[in-house]
Amino acid sequence: MERLLAAMGDPALRVRLPGGDEVGAAPERALGTVWLRDRGAVLRALLDPELQFGELYTAGRLVVEGDLVSLLASALRSDADQGWLRRILPKRLLEGVSRHDRRAATQNARHHYDVSNEFYRLWLDERMLYTCAYFPRPDASLEEAQLAKMDHVCRKLALRPGERVVEAGSGWGSLAVHMARYYGVRVRAYNVSAEQVAWSREQAEKQGLADRIEFVLDDYRAARSPCDAFVSVGMLEHVGPQCYGELGRVIDRCLTSEGRGLVHTIGRARPQALNRWMVKRIFPSARPPSISEMMALFEPNGFAVLDLENLRLHYEQTALHWLRRFEGAWREIEALVGAERARAWHLYLAGTAASFRASTVQLYQVVFARTASAALPWTRAHLYTGEADGFVARRETGGAD
Amino acid sequence: MERLLAAMGDPALRVRLPGGDEVGAAPERALGTVWLRDRGAVLRALLDPELQFGELYTAGRLVVEGDLVSLLASALRSDADQGWLRRILPKRLLEGVSRHDRRAATQNARHHYDVSNEFYRLWLDERMLYTCAYFPRPDASLEEAQLAKMDHVCRKLALRPGERVVEAGSGWGSLAVHMARYYGVRVRAYNVSAEQVAWSREQAEKQGLADRIEFVLDDYRAARSPCDAFVSVGMLEHVGPQCYGELGRVIDRCLTSEGRGLVHTIGRARPQALNRWMVKRIFPSARPPSISEMMALFEPNGFAVLDLENLRLHYEQTALHWLRRFEGAWREIEALVGAERARAWHLYLAGTAASFRASTVQLYQVVFARTASAALPWTRAHLYTGEADGFVARRETGGAD
Repeated sequence: MERLLAAMGDPALRVRLPGGDEVGAAPERALGTVWLRDRGAVLRALLDPELQFGELYTAGRLVVEGDLVSLLASALRSDADQGWLRRILPKRLLEGVSRHDRRAATQNARHHYDVSNEFYRLWLDERMLYTCAYFPRPDASLEEAQLAKMDHVCRKLALRPGERVVEAGSGWGSLAVHMARYYGVRVRAYNVSAEQVAWSREQAEKQGLADRIEFVLDDYRAARSPCDAFVSVGMLEHVGPQCYGELGRVIDRCLTSEGRGLVHTIGRARPQALNRWMVKRIFPSARPPSISEMMALFEPNGFAVLDLENLRLHYEQTALHWLRRFEGAWREIEALVGAERARAWHLYLAGTAASFRASTVQLYQVVFARTASAALPWTRAHLYTGEADGFVARRETGGAD
Repeated sequence: MERLLAAMGDPALRVRLPGGDEVGAAPERALGTVWLRDRGAVLRALLDPELQFGELYTAGRLVVEGDLVSLLASALRSDADQGWLRRILPKRLLEGVSRHDRRAATQNARHHYDVSNEFYRLWLDERMLYTCAYFPRPDASLEEAQLAKMDHVCRKLALRPGERVVEAGSGWGSLAVHMARYYGVRVRAYNVSAEQVAWSREQAEKQGLADRIEFVLDDYRAARSPCDAFVSVGMLEHVGPQCYGELGRVIDRCLTSEGRGLVHTIGRARPQALNRWMVKRIFPSARPPSISEMMALFEPNGFAVLDLENLRLHYEQTALHWLRRFEGAWREIEALVGAERARAWHLYLAGTAASFRASTVQLYQVVFARTASAALPWTRAHLYTGEADGFVARRETGGAD
C-alpha cells in the first residue's frame, strides 16, 4: 500500500487498513483518511485503483473521512496519469472500444440521463441545467449562474429575433426555452433521451412557446434543416472523436453562409482518456477532447474558430453547488435510487469538482463560423456590457435586452 | 487563359493580353483588370500563377487596374487552393524544405526586418508596431489601435508591477517599453534583428527605462531566466511547426508555476502552406499555423489554453492603414529601396489586407498557463472595463489604470 501511494506521488491522504493500521501522509499534512474495510478491498485497490476506488466506494467497502473533494483533488494532482496500470497495460485492454454509432450513442445517453427526472430535480437548479454554469461573480447563486450561462451563450451567438437555431443535445430544454423566450428565435432541438424530451416539451407548452420550439427525439445526425445558429452545450463529451468529422458535416449541411456556431464541452489540456470508473459506471464511452482533437470538427469542414474560453473554475463551482444540494437531499435520493447508486453519484459529483479544481479537465466554449463568413462581431466587448450590474435579473423581471 | 480563370473559380476580374484582347468576367462584374504586358508574362502566369503573379507584378510586367485589395480578395476567395500547380505537383517539390534552426531563423528574420528602419518608418505607426492592431472601434486611428493592442495584451496577461516578463520576438521594442512604462514590469526581450535591437535600446534609453528592459540580440531559444509572464507577438509565424515543441519547452523552463503566457500569431483555419511568392520574396520559411498545429506548443508541455481570440478583421484593417501610408509615401519609398522592391512590398501589403478579408488567413491571440495553475481570472470582463471610453487616451495623458 505504501508503494502504491509512493507511485501515486504521495497524495495528502492516509489509508486505514482493515486491522486498524494507518499508512500514508503524516496526520498534520493529510486532508483525510481512506478507510479500506476488508482485505478484499485492499487487494482490489492495490490492483487497479483507477477503477476500484469508485467500485469500492459505491459498495461501501471504502469509506472516506474528511473533505472528499479536497482529498480527490489532491490525489488527482499527484497522480495525473491515473494509476500505474495505465503505465504498464496496453490502452486498448484497459479502455476497450468506445461505440458512438446511433444505437450506441442512444444507449450511452439513456444510461445516464434516463435515471429519472425526479432524481435530477433533487440536486440541479430549478431549470434543470446539467452543464457548467457561468458565474459573473464567484458568489452568484447557481440559479443566477445558470441564467448567466445561457445569456453568455446567446450573446456569443449574437442571436437575432426570427432566426432559426439547431440545438444538438438539449438536456431538459431550458436553453431552447431561454433562446426562444428572450431572443425571439425558433429552435429545433435534438435529444435521444425520452425522459428529457417529454419534460422539455412540457416546459415549452407551459411557457406558451410550443409553436417556436420543436424537440426532436433523435440523434444529432438527423439534423438537416437550415439554421442561422448551431449550438451544442454538453454533448461533445459523449460524441467520440472518431465522429467529430461527421458532426462537422452535419453542421456544414445546416448552417447558413453567415451562421454562427457554439460548442460547449468538457475537455482536456492534452489528449487523455477519461477515468475508467467514470466511463464504466457514469458516462459510457465519454471522451472529453483536447483542443487539438476538437479541431477535427472545424478544420476539415470549412469553419474558423472565432473565440475559445476555458471556464474550468466555473465548473468546479457548479459541481460544488450540485454536491451540496445532493448531500442536502441524501435521504430522498437514497430512497429513490438506493444506497449504492447514491454513493456512486456522490463520488461522481465530488470527483467532478475535484477534477476541475486539480485541472485534470477543462471546460471549453468555442465559437465558430464558416471561414468565409463576414458576420463577425468586431470585438467581444458586447459579451460583457451590463453583465455585472444585474443584467440577468433584469431579464427575469421582464426587461428587454 | 480562360481555362486558368475557370480553374480559379472565375474570380471577378478581367485579363488584358499583350495584343489588347480581354478575357474574364463581364465588365459589369469585374473589380479590375490584370494587364499582362508581354507574351512571356502570359506564359509564366499560365504555368505558375501562385508564384508568378508576384514576380511579374514586381517586375512591372503585370499591371493591375482597379482596387488591388478587392481584386486580390476576390481571386483568393475563388481559388482557396492557390492555383492548379498545388493540385498536381508534390508539396515538397513546390515548397522546398523550410529551415528553422538558429542560423536559418536569424537569416530568415534579417531578410525581412533588416531592410532598414527608415523604410518601415515611412508606413508603420509612430511606435513602429508591425503586427495586427486592435481596433476598439473600427474607426480608431492606427496609433490608437496599436496602443489598444498593447493594452489588450497586457490585460490578458494580467501584468502586475514588479513582475518579470520574457518577450520572444520583440520587433522595434514598443511592447516591451509599454509593459515596463505602464505596467511596471521588468522585461527581457529576444530578437535576432540587429537593426531592430539597436532601435529598441534607443527607445528604452530615451524613455528612461533602460534599467528595466534588456534587449537581447539572440534567438528565443536562448531564454532561460524565470518569468511571471511570457509574451510573443508576431513571431510564431516564423517558427516552423517542427520547432513548436522546442518553443514550448523554452516557455516551460522559464515560466513560474503561476505564470501566464500569450502568443499572438497569423494562423490558418486549416493546415495550409503560405503562398509561395510570399515565402520566396517576403517571409522566408514562414508558416502560419492552424489551431491544431499550434497545440503542439501547449498540449505536450503541460499548458492549458485559457482564451483564444480570432482578430482577423483587425488585421485587414491594420494592413489597409499600412497600405494607405505606403501609397502616400511612394516616392520616398521608391527612392529608398528602388521601384521593384517598392512594387513587391506594395503587393505584399495589399495581399495581406486581401487575405484577411477573404479569410484565407486568421489572427489568433492565445492566452495560456500551466495546467495546474490557479492564477486564472474569473471571467474576461476585466479586459473590457473602460475600453470604449478613452482608456487608452487616459494612459497617454498619464492617468493610472
